[in-house]
Amino acid sequence: MTDDPPLSPALLPSGFVDLLTPDARTEAEGVATLMDVFASHGYDRVRPPLMEFEETYLAGAGASLAEQSFRVMDPDTRRMMVLRPDITPQIARMAATRAGGAARPLRVSYAGTCVVVAPVAAEESGRQVMQTGIELIGPDSPQADAEILAVGAEALERLGVTGVSFDLTMPPFIPALLEEAGIPASSRPALLRALDRKDAAAVAEHGGALSTTLTALLESSGAAEHAVARLTGLNLPPRARAILDRLVDTVAAIRESRPDLRLTVDPVEFRGWKYHTGVCVTVFATGRSEELGRGGRYLCNDNEPACGLTFRPDVLFRLIPAAAPRKRVYLAPDADRAEAARLRAQGFATIGGFSAGPQAMEDARRLGCDFVLSGLARTDVS
Amino acid sequence: MTDDPPLSPALLPSGFVDLLTPDARTEAEGVATLMDVFASHGYDRVRPPLMEFEETYLAGAGASLAEQSFRVMDPDTRRMMVLRPDITPQIARMAATRAGGAARPLRVSYAGTCVVVAPVAAEESGRQVMQTGIELIGPDSPQADAEILAVGAEALERLGVTGVSFDLTMPPFIPALLEEAGIPASSRPALLRALDRKDAAAVAEHGGALSTTLTALLESSGAAEHAVARLTGLNLPPRARAILDRLVDTVAAIRESRPDLRLTVDPVEFRGWKYHTGVCVTVFATGRSEELGRGGRYLCNDNEPACGLTFRPDVLFRLIPAAAPRKRVYLAPDADRAEAARLRAQGFATIGGFSAGPQAMEDARRLGCDFVLSGLARTDVS
Repeated sequence: MTDDPPLSPALLPSGFVDLLTPDARTEAEGVATLMDVFASHGYDRVRPPLMEFEETYLAGAGASLAEQSFRVMDPDTRRMMVLRPDITPQIARMAATRAGGAARPLRVSYAGTCVVVAPVAAEESGRQVMQTGIELIGPDSPQADAEILAVGAEALERLGVTGVSFDLTMPPFIPALLEEAGIPASSRPALLRALDRKDAAAVAEHGGALSTTLTALLESSGAAEHAVARLTGLNLPPRARAILDRLVDTVAAIRESRPDLRLTVDPVEFRGWKYHTGVCVTVFATGRSEELGRGGRYLCNDNEPACGLTFRPDVLFRLIPAAAPRKRVYLAPDADRAEAARLRAQGFATIGGFSAGPQAMEDARRLGCDFVLSGLARTDVS
Repeated sequence: MTDDPPLSPALLPSGFVDLLTPDARTEAEGVATLMDVFASHGYDRVRPPLMEFEETYLAGAGASLAEQSFRVMDPDTRRMMVLRPDITPQIARMAATRAGGAARPLRVSYAGTCVVVAPVAAEESGRQVMQTGIELIGPDSPQADAEILAVGAEALERLGVTGVSFDLTMPPFIPALLEEAGIPASSRPALLRALDRKDAAAVAEHGGALSTTLTALLESSGAAEHAVARLTGLNLPPRARAILDRLVDTVAAIRESRPDLRLTVDPVEFRGWKYHTGVCVTVFATGRSEELGRGGRYLCNDNEPACGLTFRPDVLFRLIPAAAPRKRVYLAPDADRAEAARLRAQGFATIGGFSAGPQAMEDARRLGCDFVLSGLARTDVS
């Protein structure tokens, strides 16, 4: 390593960036807006730590996240710690420990930074990932699933993100169906690949006794009402039927409060879900492949039902207007202090000037100020 | 390791904690208040990343922070990355790279999480450390030092933190004085230890030709006006005199804008400062040994003058009242949606209820709600 040429001081590891103004402010203000909407629905803010013992983090909902986690040794205990790749497993742990005795339903919100060893999806570039989300712990009902989604939709609206689509799926459905239909283990990999690629011909080829059903499922994918109409008529074995009925009930519960949302259903999607056990949702903006957020139903560490939704502010903030800058005032060294304080209270940024006279005007121009305050007198920057 | 008994799921590594409500909200709102004051003085928010290449992070102002840094390997480049123990060196790097061409004075603010291998001071317990601060890059003047301190004081006042003391010191002073006075290297360790412990007898014993001067310096420590009066009369060699004159000028510059601040000077303090090159400040709350913040003058990566001040919100938030909770309303399943939205807009938290009738009242009580909304009717929780 010592033979390598020295790194440029500007070089950061891939997936890590410096945010400058206005991006850093847009993100911070966007997170505050999301957290405010969450709080208005009774989701109390918590802040789990950036690092935990690997053994406890990976024990519960985090088990599937091992390969995404950076690890370091705790010199105190010589146990390994993980730098969290995801906050949801921490909420699950808190719900079972410090918040174990808190009244249910337990509603919590969080905003924090996560780090993943490699970007999760091919189209993503970040390894430092901001997460802002909510978790609803206790109830296991279509109404709870619907609440999470409705609160998320309201948060996006407050942020000014429009043209959003909520794509529902049910990761346990396909595995249950294949199991119940007795599809031999040897045929499953090819069939799962075909379903994942939505390749109707390959599904028909590898589907065996399920060919007709799976083809119908593929065709049912789309707008929620279209999907529900098709799914209701399908003949399915009991466990698969029950899973799908829950999805249909969730659509109905969402429609009760939000008939206007753009809602789609894909009953055969199952890839990319780690610890989820029920209805899941991916949030997209029209015409963009990056996810704005995702969430769904899972089990807390003590098998308590829970559901949640996590947004990616670093993706979201690219879709909203930059935070408006404050108007700037250059304070000459003799500027009246009380007047400067009044200007700040009115929303101006006052820039402490170290120059007077013509140099003050020159500095004010260079620093983007609208006027110079000298004594109580304002002089516009020409 | 595999023979160890399993960890309790509630156990976190020492120095890492779960913050619940209201603490998590108090911290977040406190940070927002600090950042708002910083922005009102023209400090633009930036957000450097949580991790950087070790080689670049430790190259500049961060060189002295190596032993405080957790390190992991970047699987992409096989170079080591550090989990930042401090944000200021990142600002110094940004000032020399991406913000190298930005107009000077460059004013930036930041709020973010740092991780240290071990708590920095014995009285501290945290290894995950929140930092919120400002840096003023370009000018090297008493006015710049004074601005940082005045903006910091205003931020604490807005937060409601009272009884604050700003303790000024000049870390390069004692090394320069010992050097100029020709104190032999063999005597310095004992003398520095004596100065560090403020042990007047030992200072007299090991001080050699400087005994009288060092004793006078020890006695000059205290309230700023007392210190300045004593320091001005001292006979000092030229470099030491220049360093001290700058401290005296900085006190005068601070007094011009803030005659009311509790300001102390300790000219012989030098320990615990890593990369600082001029006037430094430690912020204390009366009667507490923990620092609320610290800062001072240093050099950016390309030797550009800079000064900054960093607060510790995790310490600060213990000194301010907890963030006031929202009043909570239980929404029965038939609650009027428009009325619920109106209540949220008025600052209430509406708790989505999954029960109706007497069970709704019972749930509302358990969840800390003030009343139940059913249709448009409110029923107080008894």
